[in-house]
Amino acid sequence: MKGNDLKSFLIIKFMAVYVLKLGHRIHRDYRLDTHLALAARAFLADKLYYSGQKDSKFEDNVNKVTKKFGGSFCVDYITNYLNFIKHFNGKKVHLTMYGIEIKNKIKELKQFDELLIIVGGEKVPPNIYQISDYNICVTNQPHSEVSALALFLDKYFEDKKINNKFSHSNILIVPNEKGKTVIKSK
Amino acid sequence: MKGNDLKSFLIIKFMAVYVLKLGHRIHRDYRLDTHLALAARAFLADKLYYSGQKDSKFEDNVNKVTKKFGGSFCVDYITNYLNFIKHFNGKKVHLTMYGIEIKNKIKELKQFDELLIIVGGEKVPPNIYQISDYNICVTNQPHSEVSALALFLDKYFEDKKINNKFSHSNILIVPNEKGKTVIKSK
Repeated sequence: MKGNDLKSFLIIKFMAVYVLKLGHRIHRDYRLDTHLALAARAFLADKLYYSGQKDSKFEDNVNKVTKKFGGSFCVDYITNYLNFIKHFNGKKVHLTMYGIEIKNKIKELKQFDELLIIVGGEKVPPNIYQISDYNICVTNQPHSEVSALALFLDKYFEDKKINNKFSHSNILIVPNEKGKTVIKSK
Repeated sequence: MKGNDLKSFLIIKFMAVYVLKLGHRIHRDYRLDTHLALAARAFLADKLYYSGQKDSKFEDNVNKVTKKFGGSFCVDYITNYLNFIKHFNGKKVHLTMYGIEIKNKIKELKQFDELLIIVGGEKVPPNIYQISDYNICVTNQPHSEVSALALFLDKYFEDKKINNKFSHSNILIVPNEKGKTVIKSK
């Protein structure tokens, strides 16, 4: 293996980006958190952890998409989010409209290969701001945790080489100018 | 006014980006479409039109955010979306996971100053693919209309000079490393 290949291999091997969604509520957040999880998956995160109410329907729904469209992304429930954040070994990035603008920090953040991206709902406990290594905003206007997460991941992974993230899919979408082209494997 | 200033002035004056959300359902889509509208606003679209069920609570909620955080973004209901799309003068861009990848079209799209960005929900009528000038995907993996719209707008406006989009706000968020800094005007 040549130098550059080895470097790429190591980057792929040790890169891990997780998302933690705080305070899931079964009825209220089911659709929005499904969109959040799918955005996490589509923009190359490895896993979504969530706290709040355990929601098997939500987990199953996301896992079904992974089974159909490939990869190993999954959703996992955690009971004690504070403990989880404290014991996480990589850098903890809290996405909030009150944080530092992403454009001023993205270069620094790209240096880290293990991230926990924390997203809250409407009310985030104040200690999250303290225990996070970074509080980052994707514009300081209000929008959505779904768009904030997708934008963050898109910028973070922009020039990193990530391959085979959606392997073993049962379905493949082929870009089409005026309709749908779907290839299904048997 | 010098040549470049005049050019900038004209670009700002005539640039108009609208979003059309198809098929809003009051109870089911209230939260998700609020996030969609806020993402449209935060990422510099001028207005969100929506079809489906008229929802005054949804409209009021978004308009309240505009009043608080500034600018002139608003939400408007339309009854006949097909007629609306057909009579729109600018370019019509349908965001769909089945479309052409944004990276292959964004340079071309940046040339147009008047866009209607069409986003559907789960089921989009087939004729939308035909009457749109572009069917564009922001990854061909499933995620969310909220993340697709935000990513599209972020890339479209990336190097355009847009000023004073959030003027006359009652509240201003100042980036903070470890907490919240909010300035309120009286």
